[in-house]
Amino acid sequence: MGIIVQKYGGSSVATAEHIRAVAERVKRVRESGHDLVVTVSAMGKQTDRLLRLAGEVSRDPSPREIDQLLSTGELQSVALLAMALHDRGVAATSLTGPQAGMKTTGRYGSGVISGIQPGRLRGLLDEGQVAIVAGFQGVNTLGDIMTLGRGGSDTTAVALAAALGAERCEIFTDVDGIYTADPRIVPEARRIPVILPSEMAEMAWRGAKVMHPRAVELGALYGVEIHVKSSFEEGPGTIIMGGNGLEHLETRETVAGIVHDLDVSRITLTGIKTGPGTMSRVFSPLAEAGISVDVIVESAPKEGTSDVAFTVRRGDFREALRLAGEVADSLDGQVEGEEDLGKVSVVGTGMLNRPGYAARMFATLGEAGIPIRLVSTSEIQVTCVLPAGRVEEAVRVLHRDFELEERDV
Amino acid sequence: MGIIVQKYGGSSVATAEHIRAVAERVKRVRESGHDLVVTVSAMGKQTDRLLRLAGEVSRDPSPREIDQLLSTGELQSVALLAMALHDRGVAATSLTGPQAGMKTTGRYGSGVISGIQPGRLRGLLDEGQVAIVAGFQGVNTLGDIMTLGRGGSDTTAVALAAALGAERCEIFTDVDGIYTADPRIVPEARRIPVILPSEMAEMAWRGAKVMHPRAVELGALYGVEIHVKSSFEEGPGTIIMGGNGLEHLETRETVAGIVHDLDVSRITLTGIKTGPGTMSRVFSPLAEAGISVDVIVESAPKEGTSDVAFTVRRGDFREALRLAGEVADSLDGQVEGEEDLGKVSVVGTGMLNRPGYAARMFATLGEAGIPIRLVSTSEIQVTCVLPAGRVEEAVRVLHRDFELEERDV
Repeated sequence: MGIIVQKYGGSSVATAEHIRAVAERVKRVRESGHDLVVTVSAMGKQTDRLLRLAGEVSRDPSPREIDQLLSTGELQSVALLAMALHDRGVAATSLTGPQAGMKTTGRYGSGVISGIQPGRLRGLLDEGQVAIVAGFQGVNTLGDIMTLGRGGSDTTAVALAAALGAERCEIFTDVDGIYTADPRIVPEARRIPVILPSEMAEMAWRGAKVMHPRAVELGALYGVEIHVKSSFEEGPGTIIMGGNGLEHLETRETVAGIVHDLDVSRITLTGIKTGPGTMSRVFSPLAEAGISVDVIVESAPKEGTSDVAFTVRRGDFREALRLAGEVADSLDGQVEGEEDLGKVSVVGTGMLNRPGYAARMFATLGEAGIPIRLVSTSEIQVTCVLPAGRVEEAVRVLHRDFELEERDV
Repeated sequence: MGIIVQKYGGSSVATAEHIRAVAERVKRVRESGHDLVVTVSAMGKQTDRLLRLAGEVSRDPSPREIDQLLSTGELQSVALLAMALHDRGVAATSLTGPQAGMKTTGRYGSGVISGIQPGRLRGLLDEGQVAIVAGFQGVNTLGDIMTLGRGGSDTTAVALAAALGAERCEIFTDVDGIYTADPRIVPEARRIPVILPSEMAEMAWRGAKVMHPRAVELGALYGVEIHVKSSFEEGPGTIIMGGNGLEHLETRETVAGIVHDLDVSRITLTGIKTGPGTMSRVFSPLAEAGISVDVIVESAPKEGTSDVAFTVRRGDFREALRLAGEVADSLDGQVEGEEDLGKVSVVGTGMLNRPGYAARMFATLGEAGIPIRLVSTSEIQVTCVLPAGRVEEAVRVLHRDFELEERDV
């Protein structure tokens, strides 16, 4: 049987009791005959405790030392899980990121995986051991520990699955799968049994919180089949397919799901002089300030001027408005903004080459009297930017109109 | 100016406030112009917390995983101290034991340092940085973290001082130096300003708790000058000399100090048949059971039989008595034991070639009516095993009789 890589998040290993429960689950999978690599996050509150200590000794802790400090949380989890497995008669060895051959590059606090040398991991699997790998970390060419930043533990698991040619990667989390919409907003929302990696990546980028898009994209790139499951109950979860899913393309009639994000604000420059280099003059200052821009819409030029609108996270709104104002001044235009926005996206490869979906979305929102501020589309998603206060309603009406509660995949 | 290696124990870094205080002290030393390597233990209660967690997930945690787990305590301390130094404008970099080039061998949980590759450490010092090294740990040839066992953090510091050819090694602890006797028992006990490494090693082995004998012996072997100081107050502490001290030999008239140990019990085999191999037959079973034997006294054989007495720690008393009983049976002898004993030692190179010191010790104890159960002597110490209840009195009368309170070094 093939290799399975499992990942348990911080809430799954929050206490000794949780760790024992994870060990029971790992034992069952191991006894089914699979080779097993398990990656674990730091115990629940551990990272917060360490960050608080860092704040007590330093006003501005260096990223390198923060990484040295935070990486210890995962080291504790892996050692404790190994002990709990030994106690159940399961041969297991814990490995730090560096010991597992995770090579990283980039900046401290947001390292990216540059490669994996799986020699020691393979040796452990050949001996019949469960290899337990500290998530969220690797080692750079200086020999220093780096943490992987947001989504890092999921990324560790998917990268290990890719490097080992695993049969699948199982992500255990506090929900039992990916839903057609947030069940707190849409009670009829249904768990999606199978989803294409491209759809999952769009959903993750557009606001689905269950898996980080970075890990989803890595899985898509290397064809890793990912199962998203609950740590706390048995169930099939959601399978993110490992292939490109082309064999299912024609049979998928509808959208995969509705996702939303409430952390959106909009800035619009109006009447700016247009010409070659205008877009660069607008967006370069934002990039230099480290502000991520999401949706960008430029109107067609009229009499040598045009309008440019874009969205940023709310935390960046003030600074982005100031920078955009300077640019607007220099281009004889005006700037205005709106802070309390959200966006709603309809995602699905079923939309490919079926332009009707965007029109249907606009119609549904229009009938509900929900104003649309901006629109962004790609082959497999349509996103509308709306007033934040109307987002939940928009998710509900779209979920109903696209008949997601009745879907039978 | 030369390199100084400093070591701060767990109580010196117990809280963020303590860590800031250590950073202030390190800053002052750095500003005096010395190159500085600092090694730190885990924060106060951290090791206990981790061991408790280990006990909650496993009845019998594997030594390798315990080492993986416990080593994280020191990693947290070094990162936090580095941050606190940065906050004070002091360039500093934290290193794990492996990053500092600490190579270890032996068993998990009681590793021994097999070598140090100080390349990265020297590089940091050349850049003018304070290097902060996780104590108590190193890496074995498998690439696994090992902890160094009892006395490990002191040993890390002394080994670093030896490898770097440091001017001195400063051990910061919760007392302000080595005393002529335990001040809780002898109020007139005096801090010893300067002590020879051979004396310090004897005192450490015979019961002085301030420094582990293992670290003292390593310092003696490599000629490292060690300063034992208080973390909590300024003061000269005790200097353990780095050389062999021969230049001081003739000027030292008296003993260095009186040390005691209350963890002693005695076992005596009487009337056993004696011949070649008798001692081996007595002590091999104890060695196989991992029981350390301290003082050994064999009486002169008489009519083909002899008596053998030895001491063991109280925790080993029952098992040692059982094993010795089996040996006595096979040699037609008897066994008896006494559990509640202690030992008192008079230590000092001043005793070299002056046999009068042992006689004076016996006379002092005899005048006080204190019975002596066993005696062991070497060139620079005399040890008497006594009833545990008489140990404190023995320390007091010997301290007075050897005029240690009046000594002027």
